[in-house]
Amino acid sequence: MATLGDIGMSALINILGAFAFLLAFALLRIQPLNDRVYFTKWYIEGQRSSPSRRGDGLVGRFVNLNYRTYLTFLNWMPQALQMKEPQIIEHAGLDSAVFLRIYRLGLKIFGPIAIVAAIVLFPVNASGGTLFFLQHDLVVNNIDKLSISNIHPKSNKFLVHIGLEYLFTFWACYMLYKEYDKVASMRLSFLASCGRHPAQFTVLVRNVPRDPNRSISETVDNFFQRNHPDYYLCHQSVYKAKKFAKLVKKRIKLQNQLNYNQLKFERNPKKRPTRKKGFLGLWGERVDSIDYFEQQIKDLDEQVKIEREKVMKDPKAVTRAAFVSFKTRWGAAVCAQTQQSKNPTLWLTYWAPEPRDIYWKNLGIPFVSLSIRKLIISVAMFGLIFFYFIPVAFVQSLANIEGLSKALPFLRPILDRKLVKSFLQGFVPGLALKIFLLLLPSILMVMSKIEGHVAVSVLEQKTAAKYYYFMLVNVFLGSIATGTAFQQLNAFLHQSATEIPRNIGVSIPMKASFFITYIMIDGWAGIAGEILRLKPLAFFHLKRMFLVKTERDLEKAMRPKGVDFPETLPSLQLYFLLGIVYMAVTPILLPFILVFFAFAYFVYRHQVINVYNQKYESAAAFWPHVHNRIIASLVVSQLLLMGLLSTKKATNSTPLLVVLPILTLTFHKYCKHRFEPAFRNDPLEESMSKDLEDGATELDGEFKSQLMDAYLHPIFHNIEGVEDEIRIEKN
Amino acid sequence: MATLGDIGMSALINILGAFAFLLAFALLRIQPLNDRVYFTKWYIEGQRSSPSRRGDGLVGRFVNLNYRTYLTFLNWMPQALQMKEPQIIEHAGLDSAVFLRIYRLGLKIFGPIAIVAAIVLFPVNASGGTLFFLQHDLVVNNIDKLSISNIHPKSNKFLVHIGLEYLFTFWACYMLYKEYDKVASMRLSFLASCGRHPAQFTVLVRNVPRDPNRSISETVDNFFQRNHPDYYLCHQSVYKAKKFAKLVKKRIKLQNQLNYNQLKFERNPKKRPTRKKGFLGLWGERVDSIDYFEQQIKDLDEQVKIEREKVMKDPKAVTRAAFVSFKTRWGAAVCAQTQQSKNPTLWLTYWAPEPRDIYWKNLGIPFVSLSIRKLIISVAMFGLIFFYFIPVAFVQSLANIEGLSKALPFLRPILDRKLVKSFLQGFVPGLALKIFLLLLPSILMVMSKIEGHVAVSVLEQKTAAKYYYFMLVNVFLGSIATGTAFQQLNAFLHQSATEIPRNIGVSIPMKASFFITYIMIDGWAGIAGEILRLKPLAFFHLKRMFLVKTERDLEKAMRPKGVDFPETLPSLQLYFLLGIVYMAVTPILLPFILVFFAFAYFVYRHQVINVYNQKYESAAAFWPHVHNRIIASLVVSQLLLMGLLSTKKATNSTPLLVVLPILTLTFHKYCKHRFEPAFRNDPLEESMSKDLEDGATELDGEFKSQLMDAYLHPIFHNIEGVEDEIRIEKN
Repeated sequence: MATLGDIGMSALINILGAFAFLLAFALLRIQPLNDRVYFTKWYIEGQRSSPSRRGDGLVGRFVNLNYRTYLTFLNWMPQALQMKEPQIIEHAGLDSAVFLRIYRLGLKIFGPIAIVAAIVLFPVNASGGTLFFLQHDLVVNNIDKLSISNIHPKSNKFLVHIGLEYLFTFWACYMLYKEYDKVASMRLSFLASCGRHPAQFTVLVRNVPRDPNRSISETVDNFFQRNHPDYYLCHQSVYKAKKFAKLVKKRIKLQNQLNYNQLKFERNPKKRPTRKKGFLGLWGERVDSIDYFEQQIKDLDEQVKIEREKVMKDPKAVTRAAFVSFKTRWGAAVCAQTQQSKNPTLWLTYWAPEPRDIYWKNLGIPFVSLSIRKLIISVAMFGLIFFYFIPVAFVQSLANIEGLSKALPFLRPILDRKLVKSFLQGFVPGLALKIFLLLLPSILMVMSKIEGHVAVSVLEQKTAAKYYYFMLVNVFLGSIATGTAFQQLNAFLHQSATEIPRNIGVSIPMKASFFITYIMIDGWAGIAGEILRLKPLAFFHLKRMFLVKTERDLEKAMRPKGVDFPETLPSLQLYFLLGIVYMAVTPILLPFILVFFAFAYFVYRHQVINVYNQKYESAAAFWPHVHNRIIASLVVSQLLLMGLLSTKKATNSTPLLVVLPILTLTFHKYCKHRFEPAFRNDPLEESMSKDLEDGATELDGEFKSQLMDAYLHPIFHNIEGVEDEIRIEKN
Repeated sequence: MATLGDIGMSALINILGAFAFLLAFALLRIQPLNDRVYFTKWYIEGQRSSPSRRGDGLVGRFVNLNYRTYLTFLNWMPQALQMKEPQIIEHAGLDSAVFLRIYRLGLKIFGPIAIVAAIVLFPVNASGGTLFFLQHDLVVNNIDKLSISNIHPKSNKFLVHIGLEYLFTFWACYMLYKEYDKVASMRLSFLASCGRHPAQFTVLVRNVPRDPNRSISETVDNFFQRNHPDYYLCHQSVYKAKKFAKLVKKRIKLQNQLNYNQLKFERNPKKRPTRKKGFLGLWGERVDSIDYFEQQIKDLDEQVKIEREKVMKDPKAVTRAAFVSFKTRWGAAVCAQTQQSKNPTLWLTYWAPEPRDIYWKNLGIPFVSLSIRKLIISVAMFGLIFFYFIPVAFVQSLANIEGLSKALPFLRPILDRKLVKSFLQGFVPGLALKIFLLLLPSILMVMSKIEGHVAVSVLEQKTAAKYYYFMLVNVFLGSIATGTAFQQLNAFLHQSATEIPRNIGVSIPMKASFFITYIMIDGWAGIAGEILRLKPLAFFHLKRMFLVKTERDLEKAMRPKGVDFPETLPSLQLYFLLGIVYMAVTPILLPFILVFFAFAYFVYRHQVINVYNQKYESAAAFWPHVHNRIIASLVVSQLLLMGLLSTKKATNSTPLLVVLPILTLTFHKYCKHRFEPAFRNDPLEESMSKDLEDGATELDGEFKSQLMDAYLHPIFHNIEGVEDEIRIEKN
C-alpha cells in the first residue's frame, strides 16, 4: 500500500507526462503537415482544404513558420468549449453529443458527492482511531486514515457511512433520472427534427418463408400487399454476392491506378507512363499504363455485368431478408412493432437501421441459427473471461527455453545464443499478454459479428458489453481478489451467498491506492494519448510516403473514425463503478476520478468537434446500457458495503442497508418502463404528426426513388454507371 | 422410512378410500335430488330441466326408484371418455380442454420413462449392493434397494443414471415441444373459429392523460381520431361508481323478493302475502308484500336514476381507462401492439379481455401506483413464504393456557374448565394451521388483486404462480430439508452455490417414501373427493332448505364454478416436479404419479363435461406458465442430481451433467421465442384474413351497437329498462 506521499509523487509524474503530451499535441497540430490528422472532421465536411493549396512556399507547406501561432498554441482549449450542444448535435450527431454528456454526468454525480464526503467522512474516519493505535507496529498508510478501515469494529460511526450510502445513492439516482429524461427527449426531438429520411419509412423483414413456387421477392410483395394494403410501397431484396463484391473491389483498385497514371501523365505530358505486365508490375512485357488499365477495367466491367446478372437471376442468391418501405411513417411504425405471422419465427420485423449502419453480411441468418449462435458465443464469452490466461500462458511457456529446445531440437543452435535467449525470456511473456489485450476488442467484435446482429451500432454495443464484463471480472474483481479469474470463480462456487460480498468487501479499502494509480495511468495518461493521436499520425505519414497516389488515397489515409464506443464506453463505466464503490468507503479516490472526467470531457469534446467522423447515427441507442450499468454499479457497491460492514461486526447497522438494493432495483425497473420504450419503438403519435406535417400523404416521385435506392444492396452501388442500369431494370 | 410393505398397506388403504368415495358418488349422482349438483353444466346449457317437472310422483322427485339405473351406476366412467376433444372445446371452452391435456401430457411424459426406468434402473440399482452390506447393522428400506442410494460411491454405474437423465430430459423436452406446438395451434384455430366477437375489435387503454380543458372521453376521442383516423370507431369510458353499484345490488334483491311474493300469490290466489315493515320484516306495521316491494323498487329506481346521472356528469367518476373499439380487427391489432405516445407511461394499450373476464375495479389504477403495488406485493409474498409460520405460531400459542390466563385474567374461570382446556390444547394448534391453509388461496387472490391486474384470468394465473412458489418452498423443499422455510433460507445464505444442491440432493432419495404417501393422500384421495363434490352438495341442500325462494335462487344455489385453476395448476405442477426429480433417482415413485395423472384425467374429464362452467375463456393463456414450470423442474432435477452425485464421489461422471441444464435452458429460450408470442399478440396476418372473410370492411349497424354495449360498465347493465335509456343517451 502506498502512502499519500507515494501517490502524490505518482500523480506528479502522471500530470507532467500528461502535460508533455498536451504540449506535443499543441505544437504538432499547428503544423500544416499534420492538418489532416488533427482536423479530419473539417476536411470531411469540406470546410477545410489541403494546406498544400494555400501556397505558403515549399517549406510552409510542411512546417508552420508563422511565429504568432506558436504564442497562442494553447487556444484549442477554450475553442473546444465554445461550441454549444445543439451545434455539436448538428455538427457531429446525437451519438457524440450524448457520449460527451456521460462525462458531464460523471462530474455532476461525483462532484457534490466528493464535497459532502470530504466534509462529513474525512473527520469521521480520521477520528476513528483504530489505526492510530496500531501505528507503532505497522507502517500505516495515510490514505487508510481517511478510509473506513480506520473505524473501530462495532463502532456506531458506521451509521454515518450507511446514511451517506443512502444519500449518495439517492443523489446518483436523481441525476440518472434527470439525465435519462433529458437524453430520451433529446433522442425524440432529434428523430423528430431530422427531416424526411428513408429509415423512417422502412422496415427490415427477416425470416421470409421460402415458397417453392415463388421467388422471395414475390412472396414479400404478396404478403405485404395483403396485410398492409393501404401502406405498402415497395421492397428491396438482400443478396448474397461474395464473388460480385470481390470483382467490385478489384475494379475500384484498377480505377484508382488508372486515375494515378492519368494524373502522372497530366503533370508530365511528355512521357506516357508505362508498366510491366506481370505480377505487381515487376516483370513481363512493358506496356503503356493508361491503355493497360483501361483495357483491364473494360474486361472487368464485362465480368461484373455477367456476375451481376447471374446474382440477380439466381434465386439462391436472394437471402430471406428484405427491406420493406411504406407510404407513410405511420404504416412503417405499425409494421415494425407488430407481429405479422401466426408462426412468430417467420416475418420478423424490425426498424430498418440507417443505410450506413447496416451490417449486410448478417441479414440472411435464419432464426434457428441465431439461437445456436447466441448460445455458442455466450459459452465462448464465459470461457474467454475466465480462461483467457490459458492461451496467453501457453505462448508465455514458449519462452521457456528448455521446453522449446526439447520440443524442437533442430532450433537448439539458435536458442543457445545469448541474445535470442534473453529476448525470449525477458520480452515474450509481457509481449504475449500485451498483444492479447490489444487484440481483445477485435476478438470481441468478431464474436459479436458471429452472434448475428444486423447493425454496426448494435455490434458496437454488444462488443462494449463484452469488454465491460471482461474488465469487470479481470480488472475490478481481479485486482481486489487474489489469483486468476478462474481461481476466483472456483472460490466463489465454494462460498456462500453472504460470504462472497464479505470476502470482496473486506479488501476493497485496501485496494484504494492501487485504483488511484490505475486511474492516473490508464485514465489521465490514456486520455492525453488520445488527443495526441500518435497511431493515426504515424500511419498517416507512413501511408503518405509510400502508398498515397491520388487525392482519393489521401482521403483514405486520414482514416476518419468515430468515437471508439467498444473501448471507451466500458472503461468509462469502469470509472463509474470505481467511484460508486469507493464513494462511501475511501472518498479520497473521488478527486482523481473527477479529474479524469473533466479532462476526458475536454479532450473528447475537442476530438468530436475536430477529428471524429461517426460512421452511423444511432440516436444515442447506447444510453440505456450505460444507465443500466451505473445502476448495477450502485447495487454492487451496496452489497460490498454490506459485506465490508459485516466483517466490522456492525451487526446493529448492517441490516439497515438491506432496503437500499431493493429500492435501487425498483428505481431501475421504473426507469426501464418509463424511458426504455423511447429507445426501441417509434410512438405512433410521433409518426402520425410527422406524416401530417408532410401535408399530403402521397409521396412525391423523387422521394419515392430515393427511398428505393437507399436500401439497395451496396454491391450495386459502388461502381459509377452500373447503378443506373439496375435502377431502370428494377423499375 | 417406510418399507415396501408399509407403502403397499398405505396404498391399499388409499385405494379402498378412493373406491368408497367413487361408490358414494355413483350412488348419489343418480338421485334426482342431487341432479343439479352433478349435472350443473347441462342445466346451465339448458339441456336438462328440473327433475321435479318430470313427474315421477312425490318420492320419485327426490329418490331414484328406478332399480335399473342402480345396476349400471358405474357407466359414468365410459361416458366421460366418449366426448371427443373438439366437442369438449365446443361444450366447455378451450381452457378446460387444454387443462385436461396437461394430465395427458403427464401420462405421455412419465409413462415411457417409467417403463425404461423399470427395465434399466431397477437391475442397476438392485445390483449396486452398498446397502446389502450394511443390512446387518441397519434396517434397510426396500425402496432404497431400488434407488440410487444402493449404488457404491465412486461406482461407474452412475454413468447409467446420467445417461438416463439425458434421455429422460430429451424425451420430456420432445413431448413438451410437441404439446406447445399443438396447444399454440389449437389456440390460434380456436381464436380464428370463434366468429366475430367484440373483444377482437377492442383495445383497453390505460393511463389516459388528464387534460384540464377536456373530459377524459373527449381526450380519448381526439387522440384516436388523430392517430388512428382510418380505423377508430368509438370508445366506452370506465366509471368509478361504488354507491351506484350498491344501489343496483339492493334493487336486484328487492326484485327477487317481489318475484317470490308474486309467485306465492299466483300459487295461492286467495291470500295476498303480507309482511311487517321493519328490519328483516320482523316487526312494525303489517303491509301487503307485493305493494310494499313495488313501492320500494319505485323509490329505489328514482335514487338509481339520480345517482346514475350524478356519476355520468361527474368528471371525477370517470377513470383514466377506456375501451376503444375499431372498425377492423387489423386496426385493433395494430393499436394493441404499438406504442402510442412519446411518454411510454401514457396511453398504454392492451388487448381488451373478454367482457366476462374483466376485473373492473382495477382498471383505473395509474402507472406509478402499479409499480409500487408490485414491489409491496413481492416483498409481502417473500414474507408470506418464509415467515407464514409466525402468525400461525402466534395463534397456536394462544392454546398455551397459562399464557392466556395470564394475559386475560378475567377468562381464568372459563379456561380452568377441563373441557375447554383440552379443546384448546388438543385441537386449536392443528386447526390454526388448517384454517391458514384453507384461507391461503383467498389471501393470495387478494394479493393478486392488489397488484392491479385487470382480467380475472390473469388474476387466477398470478394466484396460481404464488401458490406454486409457496408449495415449492414449504412442501417440496420443506419436506426435504429440515427446519422451517426461514431456517432453510438462513442456511442457504450461509452455504456456497455448490453446497446447496448437494445438501438438498443428498436427502432426495431418503424422502421418496414420504412423497409416495403424499401423492396417495393428497393426490388420489383428493381427486376422489373432487368428484364427490361434498362441499357444493352440502351447500346446495342447505340453501335449498333455507334460502331458495325463486327459480333464480335455485340457479344461484347450484354455484356453477369453473375449474379452480389457482389450486389445481400448482398442485399439478408439483406432481410434475416430483416425477421429474425422482425419475432417475427413485423411479418406484413414478407409477404412483402415473395413477394420479390417469385418475385425475378421468375425474376432471367427467367434471368438465357435466359440472364445471367456466366464467371466462382465456384461450389457454395459462399454458406458457405450465410449460415454463415443467422446464424449471427439469433444471432443478438436474442440479439436484449433480449435487447428489457429488456426494457419491462420482467425480468422473458428474461433470458430464453440466451441459444438460445449458441445453435445457436453450430449449426453453427457443420455445419462448417460437411459441409464446402466439399467447400474447394477435398476428396481423390472422386479423387481416378474418377481416377479409367478413367481406365488406364496413360493419353493419347491428354489430356496431353490439360492440358499443359489450364494454359498457357493468353497473349500467344489471337493471332491466335502465340500460336502453343509457344507450340512447350515449348515442
